[in-house]
Amino acid sequence: MTRYLCAPDSFKESLTAMEAAQAMARGIKNADPDAEVRCLPMADGGEGTARALADATGGAMRAVDAHDPLGRPIAAEFGMLGDGTTAVVETAEASGLALLAPEERDPLAASSYGTGELIRAALDAGATRIIVGLGGSATNDAGAGLLKALGARLLDRDGHDVAPGGAALAGLDHVDLSGLDPRLAHVGIVAACDVTNPLTGPQGASAVFGPQKGASPADVAALDHALARFADVIGRELSVAVADVPGAGAAGGIGAALKGVLGAAFRPGIDIVIETSGLDEAAQWADVVFTGEGSIDFQTKFGKTPAGVARTAKRHGRPVVVLAGHVGEGIGELYETGIDAVFGIAPGAATLDDLLEHAADNVARTAEQVTRLLRVHDNEGQSA
Amino acid sequence: MTRYLCAPDSFKESLTAMEAAQAMARGIKNADPDAEVRCLPMADGGEGTARALADATGGAMRAVDAHDPLGRPIAAEFGMLGDGTTAVVETAEASGLALLAPEERDPLAASSYGTGELIRAALDAGATRIIVGLGGSATNDAGAGLLKALGARLLDRDGHDVAPGGAALAGLDHVDLSGLDPRLAHVGIVAACDVTNPLTGPQGASAVFGPQKGASPADVAALDHALARFADVIGRELSVAVADVPGAGAAGGIGAALKGVLGAAFRPGIDIVIETSGLDEAAQWADVVFTGEGSIDFQTKFGKTPAGVARTAKRHGRPVVVLAGHVGEGIGELYETGIDAVFGIAPGAATLDDLLEHAADNVARTAEQVTRLLRVHDNEGQSA
Repeated sequence: MTRYLCAPDSFKESLTAMEAAQAMARGIKNADPDAEVRCLPMADGGEGTARALADATGGAMRAVDAHDPLGRPIAAEFGMLGDGTTAVVETAEASGLALLAPEERDPLAASSYGTGELIRAALDAGATRIIVGLGGSATNDAGAGLLKALGARLLDRDGHDVAPGGAALAGLDHVDLSGLDPRLAHVGIVAACDVTNPLTGPQGASAVFGPQKGASPADVAALDHALARFADVIGRELSVAVADVPGAGAAGGIGAALKGVLGAAFRPGIDIVIETSGLDEAAQWADVVFTGEGSIDFQTKFGKTPAGVARTAKRHGRPVVVLAGHVGEGIGELYETGIDAVFGIAPGAATLDDLLEHAADNVARTAEQVTRLLRVHDNEGQSA
Repeated sequence: MTRYLCAPDSFKESLTAMEAAQAMARGIKNADPDAEVRCLPMADGGEGTARALADATGGAMRAVDAHDPLGRPIAAEFGMLGDGTTAVVETAEASGLALLAPEERDPLAASSYGTGELIRAALDAGATRIIVGLGGSATNDAGAGLLKALGARLLDRDGHDVAPGGAALAGLDHVDLSGLDPRLAHVGIVAACDVTNPLTGPQGASAVFGPQKGASPADVAALDHALARFADVIGRELSVAVADVPGAGAAGGIGAALKGVLGAAFRPGIDIVIETSGLDEAAQWADVVFTGEGSIDFQTKFGKTPAGVARTAKRHGRPVVVLAGHVGEGIGELYETGIDAVFGIAPGAATLDDLLEHAADNVARTAEQVTRLLRVHDNEGQSA
């Protein structure tokens, strides 16, 4: 009896990681009805991380009334894992660029308040460990909104709250943490962060990520100046230097707030997911490991799920097969991660919409064929 | 050292069978530099059979000045195999529907004369065995034109040659074989034929294949009547009954001329190719067999190359992997033929033109991945 581990990322716009894993499992079972199959949805700290870890651990998504980057009410959610004490919040969920129409992008005013609301909801739910997936944000406010949602006050020299958004931080004079949610003192925050950008300067949040959020060159200069002001005040009042800390510039500077004010630990997203999901134990259990992602290419080796899964699986000497909706350039560079083979799931000429619609069947079919191929040797043995 | 046999059909509109085999070989070598790889281009009796068999046996294509179904001069070719005595002629080459613009289709007048010219050229080249691949013809003339090109005369009751095309056979009164090329007496003709349609009647050439060649219902009736006349005359004068012979209706009735007049043997195309190419010996030599085709689905089991290759390979217990440009419905039905696994080569969302343009690279990439997967067990053994 062969043991198969299905540990894919989500297939963006078509399958959650669990749906992808279950499609793989279906194909495997078609080819090997006696198979033992375990589904362990994965992620890399980006979109889908909360759901993947909730699904992987028998947890659930929790609904939260929150606010989007422009302060409008939205229905958001975070993941509460099966242990009942670990929560996963994604910055993209309530502070994400995808929440805004292109013409609504406003990095000067956009606020990370909603992400703070999700963290607060996680505290309300009893979380004592909170994983925050950084990335995909529409904000450039150094996490000021996030801090405010958790009880901090950011004041100008007249003692008034500064307005939401990064631009207003140019007038920041004082940070008052006396109202900060006291539960935060007993909670470990781990930021899933794959970038090393500092908060300010030419490699900072405003200069590197601002333009894709709608910032003009003048906006970038203003925002960089405002975030430097934020770093100055934090440094002066909390004795924490955040401006040059690697990763402080992640998610429009939310990294700075998490690290400088809330004492978060920073780790690559895939490492957090691997550890939290129990992948290592599952890979040891398995005879064969399937992983996958919507799109794969040579860049996958930089912190993406298939590479992380492969490195873990290879510590136990397991074969690793990747199924992908799109197979891009340079997959030969992935072999060093432990990936044994990469198969596209497309059945032939097809539009992206077609492929998204039939992703589950295409994953299942391809997993079935791979499993049949892996069993060729077994069958030869039996017939010999 | 592992031995790989690459025995694909052509990938229509993109790769000849040899090109497909060489792309497979390239991918295999990438994954297994020590591999011994043998390329054996295959076909099923249809388009590409002459070239595949020429390539498989170290033969060559020979150019011939011939005439298309409407009597216009064309440059055509046939395959002379490496043995120097076996020729392969395809009816589609000089008598094919693809040679005509849609508005030029004229099953009443279209003639198989060009196919006869190719056979004559094969005789000139010294062939003592001629394989004729039936199919794809624009003609409905019971092979009358073919016979004429080889020296036969088809006369009306006034002793005049009947006009080219099927319709004129309604006036056939006498077939004069005295001028038939005498070399035909010493040549074995084998027709590659996958259909069992009789020459005439509701399952005959005119009724079943006439419409796709442009025949109206009235044309079909006229042609069926004319072909029945042809069968009557042949039966009366040569004492050969061709009207109801299975396969006589192939290629617009060319089957009837080949069988009834020239004494051809009829066999499924894939069987002829397998025998002529030496596939059986090659499969015995190989450890792993790759095959493939532009498009595959459940119908592939009915005489298509991958199924034929698989049946042969499985007699020697070899694993069989199929690579296909398009993977259609019901591939599970192919397992009974001996196919172990089927992989699409598309890298993701793509137009047909894209896939045709990059077919070689996509075949190579997929063959590389399959080879890597097959070697997983070997590598495990080494590291254990």
